[in-house]
Amino acid sequence: MKKIAILGSTGSIGTQTLDVVRANGDIEVLGISAGRNIRKLEEQVREFSPRLVAVWDENAAKDLADKIKDTDTKVVSGMDGLLELAAMPETEILVTAIVGMLGIRPTIEAIRAGKDIALANKETLVTAGHLIMPMAKEYGVQILPVDSEHSAIFQSLNGEHRSEIHKLLITASGGPFRGRKRKDLETVTLADTLKHPNWVMGQKITVDSATLVNKGLEVMEARWLFDVDLNHIQVVVQPQSVIHSMVEFKDGGIIAQLGTPDMRLPIQYALYYPHRRYLGGDRLDFASLKQITFEEPDMETFLGLPMAMQASRAGGSMPTVFNAANELAVSKFLRQKIGFLDIYDIIAQSMEQHKVIENPNLEEILAVESETYQWIESRW
Amino acid sequence: MKKIAILGSTGSIGTQTLDVVRANGDIEVLGISAGRNIRKLEEQVREFSPRLVAVWDENAAKDLADKIKDTDTKVVSGMDGLLELAAMPETEILVTAIVGMLGIRPTIEAIRAGKDIALANKETLVTAGHLIMPMAKEYGVQILPVDSEHSAIFQSLNGEHRSEIHKLLITASGGPFRGRKRKDLETVTLADTLKHPNWVMGQKITVDSATLVNKGLEVMEARWLFDVDLNHIQVVVQPQSVIHSMVEFKDGGIIAQLGTPDMRLPIQYALYYPHRRYLGGDRLDFASLKQITFEEPDMETFLGLPMAMQASRAGGSMPTVFNAANELAVSKFLRQKIGFLDIYDIIAQSMEQHKVIENPNLEEILAVESETYQWIESRW
Repeated sequence: MKKIAILGSTGSIGTQTLDVVRANGDIEVLGISAGRNIRKLEEQVREFSPRLVAVWDENAAKDLADKIKDTDTKVVSGMDGLLELAAMPETEILVTAIVGMLGIRPTIEAIRAGKDIALANKETLVTAGHLIMPMAKEYGVQILPVDSEHSAIFQSLNGEHRSEIHKLLITASGGPFRGRKRKDLETVTLADTLKHPNWVMGQKITVDSATLVNKGLEVMEARWLFDVDLNHIQVVVQPQSVIHSMVEFKDGGIIAQLGTPDMRLPIQYALYYPHRRYLGGDRLDFASLKQITFEEPDMETFLGLPMAMQASRAGGSMPTVFNAANELAVSKFLRQKIGFLDIYDIIAQSMEQHKVIENPNLEEILAVESETYQWIESRW
Repeated sequence: MKKIAILGSTGSIGTQTLDVVRANGDIEVLGISAGRNIRKLEEQVREFSPRLVAVWDENAAKDLADKIKDTDTKVVSGMDGLLELAAMPETEILVTAIVGMLGIRPTIEAIRAGKDIALANKETLVTAGHLIMPMAKEYGVQILPVDSEHSAIFQSLNGEHRSEIHKLLITASGGPFRGRKRKDLETVTLADTLKHPNWVMGQKITVDSATLVNKGLEVMEARWLFDVDLNHIQVVVQPQSVIHSMVEFKDGGIIAQLGTPDMRLPIQYALYYPHRRYLGGDRLDFASLKQITFEEPDMETFLGLPMAMQASRAGGSMPTVFNAANELAVSKFLRQKIGFLDIYDIIAQSMEQHKVIENPNLEEILAVESETYQWIESRW
């Protein structure tokens, strides 16, 4: 039995991780956690009997403890709770399916405790890649990407030599507004934005997909994950979301991973790497697929991508500003406080006002996040 | 310095192997061979200074020996010459770029002498896969595919577990007559047939590509090379020849190898496996490529594929009949003695009249080849 813990077990990646656990029957879930969704946590406790459940919200933790007092599961709360979950003695893999910078501390704690990380939290590498990757190397733990694109690159690199990479080709669906121009985006609504053409995902990531901020974050992550210079990462728009990403090697040979848009595949791949298990569900059928098309990303309309590259080139604390500004802007957009294009303005202006801190430590990263939030809140 | 010998150094694969050698500068060519093209052999001797050159034709061998008597290269001839070349003491890899069943004996000789085989000779596995693969295992040598499709599968299997393969997806351009029906093929000429849409190759293989016999032979080879049941090998028509082939695994994940149509890539990959070297030339550009399209093969018009599968299912000596009948039929077609559709008739009738020998040894295989030739010559 493989033993895992899940940071963020009630979200989209968390529940699909549990689908994979359920289908395979040989993974033991020792710990789960969520922010405040205790209804779902209770169900998960009753189904998977974890030893530990960490609830971010203290009151919710108390409610849950009361509801599950007939079980053997221990309830903990707050950051101390997440850290306890991350470092549980017997787990082999921590799945970091939590959204936001909240994920970084527990990830570091898990690495120090020698756990492999099934990484689904984007912020970890975007803001602290310079701290995390050397630390993973030092403690000899694997960072196993769960994101579809990074998993595709990771799969394409199987058996290959990293020094023989020429470039990474990260594919993008182009989002629901592909083909539109800036003027068209002035009037798009929240409902339009939440219609992703291929993938069913959480709301925040669906908005990030429409702005191409998500693709920008993926480029920033890929840089750290695969130790490839930004100039050797290219985004290719592939609207059918069939090719999940590719690697071009020195000899011009390209290895790609293709499949249906099903997040259970990269999740399962991370949990069983280097093995593959049977996975139920639709399979790619090339005869009915008929075609795969390619375009260059429209960097003039969808500023998420060029701004992410600019933040990544600036380095230091700038990726944290990019990410924090986007996070708050999207939250405002989801609450219908701002329009779609305001997301870009908030990110651009936040980056412009920021003075880069080189090689920031975790405290500095978290401080820059707070400062960025405050700066935005005082203006929008 | 890596040390190689080349069976068939003056043909398309042979000369491209020497291009790879020339570009890299760290491979020593200890032996070369050809049928009778002594003009090219002399050039190659002067450029690469091999220790041994084997010429199939005895008179041509004498002429060559005379022309290069100022060099240190020894000239040998006939099958003994090919066998001496195959087993040269210091070579690590034998490139079998010779066309026809002539390649089988030297390949066996090289395997017994512990050489890895860079396999470009189709007949070896098609007719004698049941002898070659166990022998390669016994002597601990690698069979490194040079054919574009098999190399793509081999690359896609890098770091993967063979037991986790669900199916092989061999891509096909569909050849110059894709989209035409049987009636349209009644009047096609040799010149029409020799216009391959994407690859520049020898004449025989270009005809085989038009009949889809080539794809059939690839399916038969793949079965042995990757130890996959025929029912788990699927041909996908992909007219742009961008995806060179794919592997679908148990989890539904597909790994594919893509690239420009350049045979130097699989040749170089076989010579340096598991490493990749820089290779000059065009690179895939997805923005200008725009699309990759897919179709099912037309098995009712292009009988090369279904007949190959039928021969492979019948097993034993039947693949030899299929291959020999095709070889002679194509030779007649190239000499404009028969029409395009006669190729199918000759193969079909040759297979129909043959009584399968189970698990044939090499002598039986070669005898079946001769008998098939005689049977056809007495009728067409």
